[in-house]
Amino acid sequence: MSILIKNGRIVTAEADYIADLYIEGEHISAIGQGLDYQADQVINASNKLVFPGGIDPHVHLDMPFMGTYSSDDYETGTRAALFGGTTMVIDFILQTQGDSLRNALNTWQQKSVGKAIGDYSYHMAVTDFNDAVAKEVVEMIEDEGITSFKTFMAYKGALMIDDGQMVQLMKVVKKHGGLVTVHATNGDMIDSLIAKHRSEGKLAPLYHYLSQPEITEAEASGRFTDMLFYTGCPGYIVHMTCEGALNAVRRATTRNQKVFVETCSQYLVLDASLYENDFEGAKWVMSPPLREKKDQTALWSGINQGLIQVVGTDHCPFMWDQKKMGEKDFSKIPNGHPAIEHRLELMFSEGVNSGKISLNKFVEVTSTNAAKIFGIYPRKGTISIGADADIVIFDPKHEHKISVDTHHMNVDYSAYEGWKLTGKCETVILRGHMAIQNEDCKLSPGFGQFIPRGKTSQTI
Amino acid sequence: MSILIKNGRIVTAEADYIADLYIEGEHISAIGQGLDYQADQVINASNKLVFPGGIDPHVHLDMPFMGTYSSDDYETGTRAALFGGTTMVIDFILQTQGDSLRNALNTWQQKSVGKAIGDYSYHMAVTDFNDAVAKEVVEMIEDEGITSFKTFMAYKGALMIDDGQMVQLMKVVKKHGGLVTVHATNGDMIDSLIAKHRSEGKLAPLYHYLSQPEITEAEASGRFTDMLFYTGCPGYIVHMTCEGALNAVRRATTRNQKVFVETCSQYLVLDASLYENDFEGAKWVMSPPLREKKDQTALWSGINQGLIQVVGTDHCPFMWDQKKMGEKDFSKIPNGHPAIEHRLELMFSEGVNSGKISLNKFVEVTSTNAAKIFGIYPRKGTISIGADADIVIFDPKHEHKISVDTHHMNVDYSAYEGWKLTGKCETVILRGHMAIQNEDCKLSPGFGQFIPRGKTSQTI
Amino acid sequence: MSILIKNGRIVTAEADYIADLYIEGEHISAIGQGLDYQADQVINASNKLVFPGGIDPHVHLDMPFMGTYSSDDYETGTRAALFGGTTMVIDFILQTQGDSLRNALNTWQQKSVGKAIGDYSYHMAVTDFNDAVAKEVVEMIEDEGITSFKTFMAYKGALMIDDGQMVQLMKVVKKHGGLVTVHATNGDMIDSLIAKHRSEGKLAPLYHYLSQPEITEAEASGRFTDMLFYTGCPGYIVHMTCEGALNAVRRATTRNQKVFVETCSQYLVLDASLYENDFEGAKWVMSPPLREKKDQTALWSGINQGLIQVVGTDHCPFMWDQKKMGEKDFSKIPNGHPAIEHRLELMFSEGVNSGKISLNKFVEVTSTNAAKIFGIYPRKGTISIGADADIVIFDPKHEHKISVDTHHMNVDYSAYEGWKLTGKCETVILRGHMAIQNEDCKLSPGFGQFIPRGKTSQTI
Amino acid sequence: MSILIKNGRIVTAEADYIADLYIEGEHISAIGQGLDYQADQVINASNKLVFPGGIDPHVHLDMPFMGTYSSDDYETGTRAALFGGTTMVIDFILQTQGDSLRNALNTWQQKSVGKAIGDYSYHMAVTDFNDAVAKEVVEMIEDEGITSFKTFMAYKGALMIDDGQMVQLMKVVKKHGGLVTVHATNGDMIDSLIAKHRSEGKLAPLYHYLSQPEITEAEASGRFTDMLFYTGCPGYIVHMTCEGALNAVRRATTRNQKVFVETCSQYLVLDASLYENDFEGAKWVMSPPLREKKDQTALWSGINQGLIQVVGTDHCPFMWDQKKMGEKDFSKIPNGHPAIEHRLELMFSEGVNSGKISLNKFVEVTSTNAAKIFGIYPRKGTISIGADADIVIFDPKHEHKISVDTHHMNVDYSAYEGWKLTGKCETVILRGHMAIQNEDCKLSPGFGQFIPRGKTSQTI
Repeated sequence: MSILIKNGRIVTAEADYIADLYIEGEHISAIGQGLDYQADQVINASNKLVFPGGIDPHVHLDMPFMGTYSSDDYETGTRAALFGGTTMVIDFILQTQGDSLRNALNTWQQKSVGKAIGDYSYHMAVTDFNDAVAKEVVEMIEDEGITSFKTFMAYKGALMIDDGQMVQLMKVVKKHGGLVTVHATNGDMIDSLIAKHRSEGKLAPLYHYLSQPEITEAEASGRFTDMLFYTGCPGYIVHMTCEGALNAVRRATTRNQKVFVETCSQYLVLDASLYENDFEGAKWVMSPPLREKKDQTALWSGINQGLIQVVGTDHCPFMWDQKKMGEKDFSKIPNGHPAIEHRLELMFSEGVNSGKISLNKFVEVTSTNAAKIFGIYPRKGTISIGADADIVIFDPKHEHKISVDTHHMNVDYSAYEGWKLTGKCETVILRGHMAIQNEDCKLSPGFGQFIPRGKTSQTI
Repeated sequence: MSILIKNGRIVTAEADYIADLYIEGEHISAIGQGLDYQADQVINASNKLVFPGGIDPHVHLDMPFMGTYSSDDYETGTRAALFGGTTMVIDFILQTQGDSLRNALNTWQQKSVGKAIGDYSYHMAVTDFNDAVAKEVVEMIEDEGITSFKTFMAYKGALMIDDGQMVQLMKVVKKHGGLVTVHATNGDMIDSLIAKHRSEGKLAPLYHYLSQPEITEAEASGRFTDMLFYTGCPGYIVHMTCEGALNAVRRATTRNQKVFVETCSQYLVLDASLYENDFEGAKWVMSPPLREKKDQTALWSGINQGLIQVVGTDHCPFMWDQKKMGEKDFSKIPNGHPAIEHRLELMFSEGVNSGKISLNKFVEVTSTNAAKIFGIYPRKGTISIGADADIVIFDPKHEHKISVDTHHMNVDYSAYEGWKLTGKCETVILRGHMAIQNEDCKLSPGFGQFIPRGKTSQTI
Repeated sequence: MSILIKNGRIVTAEADYIADLYIEGEHISAIGQGLDYQADQVINASNKLVFPGGIDPHVHLDMPFMGTYSSDDYETGTRAALFGGTTMVIDFILQTQGDSLRNALNTWQQKSVGKAIGDYSYHMAVTDFNDAVAKEVVEMIEDEGITSFKTFMAYKGALMIDDGQMVQLMKVVKKHGGLVTVHATNGDMIDSLIAKHRSEGKLAPLYHYLSQPEITEAEASGRFTDMLFYTGCPGYIVHMTCEGALNAVRRATTRNQKVFVETCSQYLVLDASLYENDFEGAKWVMSPPLREKKDQTALWSGINQGLIQVVGTDHCPFMWDQKKMGEKDFSKIPNGHPAIEHRLELMFSEGVNSGKISLNKFVEVTSTNAAKIFGIYPRKGTISIGADADIVIFDPKHEHKISVDTHHMNVDYSAYEGWKLTGKCETVILRGHMAIQNEDCKLSPGFGQFIPRGKTSQTI
Repeated sequence: MSILIKNGRIVTAEADYIADLYIEGEHISAIGQGLDYQADQVINASNKLVFPGGIDPHVHLDMPFMGTYSSDDYETGTRAALFGGTTMVIDFILQTQGDSLRNALNTWQQKSVGKAIGDYSYHMAVTDFNDAVAKEVVEMIEDEGITSFKTFMAYKGALMIDDGQMVQLMKVVKKHGGLVTVHATNGDMIDSLIAKHRSEGKLAPLYHYLSQPEITEAEASGRFTDMLFYTGCPGYIVHMTCEGALNAVRRATTRNQKVFVETCSQYLVLDASLYENDFEGAKWVMSPPLREKKDQTALWSGINQGLIQVVGTDHCPFMWDQKKMGEKDFSKIPNGHPAIEHRLELMFSEGVNSGKISLNKFVEVTSTNAAKIFGIYPRKGTISIGADADIVIFDPKHEHKISVDTHHMNVDYSAYEGWKLTGKCETVILRGHMAIQNEDCKLSPGFGQFIPRGKTSQTI
């Protein structure tokens, strides 16, 4: 199989030029002006952008949570991702407290193998750390190509580890070349505010927001950063939402520290005023919650300052009936919102078109940096010779709207209903295979591969 | 003319892969595996790195200073630069106080046109700002492709403008899409410390160092950053040397500000202990002076944090006899040291080989970021289709030593005599023409072109 | 002469208790319950506060400025001060550039000796620093009891010294036990903004405000703090107005630095909205200008944090006809406003009554700290045995209004017309002599003494 | 009973003068020059200092801890305190987790009533917070005069409450006018480091120190400060030891926050090098541990900056045999050291005599601020009319040495053996009664009274 993409404007995290691009088998094999190559398929990409397939390092597919499961599984989730130009995702395996990492891995392999359409990897969430788990951490890095370890500073009794476990985990992970990632919020404070609100009969979605004030995230981000500093372990803060948390990382720069930071597209474009509309607000009940306009400003600036490297989604969709489990109590609303399909188009339309970020930065934060930080570069995240041919052909002028009627995620509402976008992922190629074309998914469940990942470097 | 480079490891600020690279005329026209192209010249780059020609945005050629001239002119300076893999430099035009920018431009054109071997551009140093100069600033941007304006917060009476002029300059430059760069040190404090030391008979090179304490640079860097914040103008601090100055920029991140920062290779690898050796220290009399080990640590971390984007040289060589003008008085030693030839090899040997920075970061700070910040990207600073074929073929294993006996700069001592390097710029191509091969420069004076530059963006 | 004050609530910077207080001659000689002492005069102070006379360390009497003179001289100014409970002031001697400190001292002695009603001292403003002046600085400290040296970072060509002179001055002052005080604003930036506004025909008082943005003060406060840090000299920032400047001092705490800070009552209770009323705004044209509500909040918090030690007035009144010199050009409005009489009552009414500060803190910032910092403690600034009997008997419940009709300053408008106050200085005693009683001043010109001051300590 | 102290140099947190002082019954009734009063006892205090009795707000008497009891009870502890010039202490009641505050209060009343020689109050340590305890908190404030509530961020399972409980406690305490105090260290991190060290056979006292790195305290101090900021509750950090923790409070000043801070005398004069001497180091095993010289510098500067208000002792003595419980395992060494007797003399000798703090500041941090912050001012903490006559007559020239042979604490070693002091508490008066005279304690068990305390203000 070979594909020749003609005359596209090829954009990477660094480059921006017009050329032809030739794909042979699963890989990119040549780039040049007027490439005179034979190809099974020729695509005219004039006036189109050609950039690396997106990598979403923060998704939750088929995840057991709050008594139910996120409504996208590996099939529907990775298909929707492909429609949105995201060719690879990194999902989270959740260790069951008291059980092994190995068993958790087995469970997630059953969810994914044979089902995924797009490529994927796993973060391993360590929810219970002890000497036995320490050994498994090493196995995951050395044998399984799973090199990032997610931790929770919230959800006590289910997912949370304490700061003592955190420090010991960091020591092991550092020694073996991995990376510790974190959901950085002060779980104890949040639990107490939730309980207080409930006891006072404050049960609307607004109180979800008010139970997680900025300081719970700012504090925990600073605390995590301190523990990284103490241990020397590479670290990554997921789904940062607010100025306070970003400032904790900025402050740490003065002690010559480097911490990786991810935000999510929703925190850049939505704000907490959405919680004011009674139960409608349940659509955006996620943790951390949406924040204020001043936080959006801070996050965009953090991206341009190079202090936020990645934009993910924390995609974790639930059907409206699932959301309604919390109709009478915000604390029972399954946390999460559907976004896996919209990330690239939102970042392009709201970020690039508005001049907030450059086109190179767009590629960097939606694909390249995730590939580098998580050890799948240069196989993924770039358009270069020999790399996997994961490619988006993007029409920057195409105007369209987001709607539940047209999206491909397995969820019966849209968190962005009616949102106008300029720019569309028209054609998507995964490992040299046509994935999306003419609004149709050409690939079948099982095409998606598990991508083993390499060790981590703090110098990318 | 065409050149085919076979099997090189091609490295850009983002990418890293093995491929063939084809140059047609002055530009890169194709990259691929097993390119089967006819070429006038074929180079086997197996086991070699192939990266974009370096851009040194901070050099002083044939510059009148302290009663003499820097000893490299456009011919010798750009030739030495090419030997060191730097294919383009940006020199500084110095307005004479009371005279026009236009006259200064004419003077510098006479120095460069017909003489330069490598490509070049100019920063325009505004040493006297008023309404007439404001109009010329616009002309420089719109008509001359000179879009960066250097300012001095030191050298009162010769080069310094005051903070009022600075703010008015920033307003004009911002409005027209340019960039203000700065030598950020507190000139009045320094002048007073110099005078004090001289009056006390403290005349050795060491007192050059002690007359410019860290706080003079930290303070001025913060002040400049404040003025940028007030005016909204894009800004760039040249030759940053110390933790205090970097911390001023780090602090500014918390108000969502972005300031570009350049350091120079000497500040990353040399320190102030060199001033202790009596007049020998004159070799490193430059402004700002070398600093401490803790400053080196801070600067390397600033690079990895993305807060320092560029590594230049501030190349400003003087013959030993010129340096001896200050044998009895440090304040008469011409400031500057020869470095244009060593930047890439020092950064590779001390930065990449030691693990301080990644290979991508090496290219980013020695070439790509300068191209982006100064408006010559994507013509320069990258290996991409259509870009100027400015290319270094680099042997990463080649061990050699720096010496006055082998360097190509027009200066009769080396500031790095005996320094061991691993990695060497073997072959250098400029706009598709062989520039350096077999330790020989193949190009003649006049080959170097003035490269007009575009407007500036704060989002690169 | 002896006075017995019965049953007053005696308040100092530390204490708060009910007792009788006995004055013998010029000093306090006993404090106790039911003191059974003979006295020439007995005052019933039941339900009254008895606290130390205020010390205003920042006034300008009979000062030549902007082509005219401030309208209060030593007689009218110190009389008005006494009515407002301020028993001592520290005025500023202005060195004429090119002339000696000694000559300036002579000039100011002529203004004050035989005229002052209240006690006074001088700060010496060093506007031109060189070796000869350095010697005079020592004389002032050792021979004249003038131990604080005012500097201006603004008013170039008239009052400003540059940073080099500043550093050399600091070294001398430190060595001899004095204190450097500063008007910390970036004069060059301000001059340039004034010129710009004028050239654009923006001539209303509002542009006075817009020509001195917060950053001009924040920057200079940080720069001054840096120079203190470098030299180790004790320093004091006068009339701080804004959060940005306070934050510069707060930041300096992290390098274990101590800097004294003064704000003025107007910056705590007035804000920049007053400049919006066309030429009426001229009443508050002072430098620095009034700021925003957020700055008031910061300044009150700075007082409670112990980081602002003193509240002065920068009293510098001009008649309305003088103000009108700038009717067509804000830059010609004499800078300053009348406040010497209102400081204590404003701080009590707006600070203590509102709960913003404690009663002890009120005394601390209006009297005691100035006495300690400026070397006149324990003679002044306290109620203790042996101290000068400078005492205010204050009715905390007395409601009244500020008005030009009732104030005693020599100025024909009030900057606080109609302002409601609760709390009044009813009786004021200076060195054991009745100064103010029954709304009448009992003392005559010449009663006021010059108070020589001692050396400075950074540990008070 | 009446006492007349003649000619002493009376020093308070603010004042400093020579006078006679007359005590009638339990209170100070007059101060003056040449007081001609009849007195039962006349003391010549010429050349002596006369200052308020010290208040040590951090002591542990007869406290159950780590399987034993601190070796000073209320009798021996308050007697030793009196010898050292401390006339009042505030001890800690420890709630038993699962039990009520009331029961804890009862237990501590049994320890103290009839036994204490000096005056005392209690902090209530809340180790288990819930709705029932919330009600008791209100009772303690309103009915029992116990207005400060101690919390532990360490000692999980014994004393620690989590951050959720902390926030809810703060809300209640704020509402009712109390103060939350905290042992701010990250208990989980520390527990994990202890366990790690033990598992590795690292059992010497040095590992006590290495198990509590600076960051555990810096982090927790910042976290506590954040929770105060969120709730608006007044807060007080006990026994601060290090620059990192102080910087957390300094940073908080920029959001206009005020947090009270206590350090202890040992952290100002001792450092961690003491842990290097094998088991000898057990003498200084306390939590937090001693730190570095740079931390001493920071703490002294924090005192002078007004950001540290109180110096206590955390007196918690154990006999050497008790310490030896941890001879084979540092984690079994009872934490604490004997200091109640030495605080004033150490602060005078090391602080005042060395010029680190002023004499006024000495009184402020050893007595007055504690009285103000903890609601016992002006009854205690000052020399003013009507105040309790708690007075120290101090010989500033008296040279002596600390030794187990001469100290009065019930402990068989000294942590300061051989330490040379200049300055001695010669005569101590408690509520008008002679307490210490001629190196003899004149008071009997039961003389000491419980002092009910008032509500808290953040503006002192």
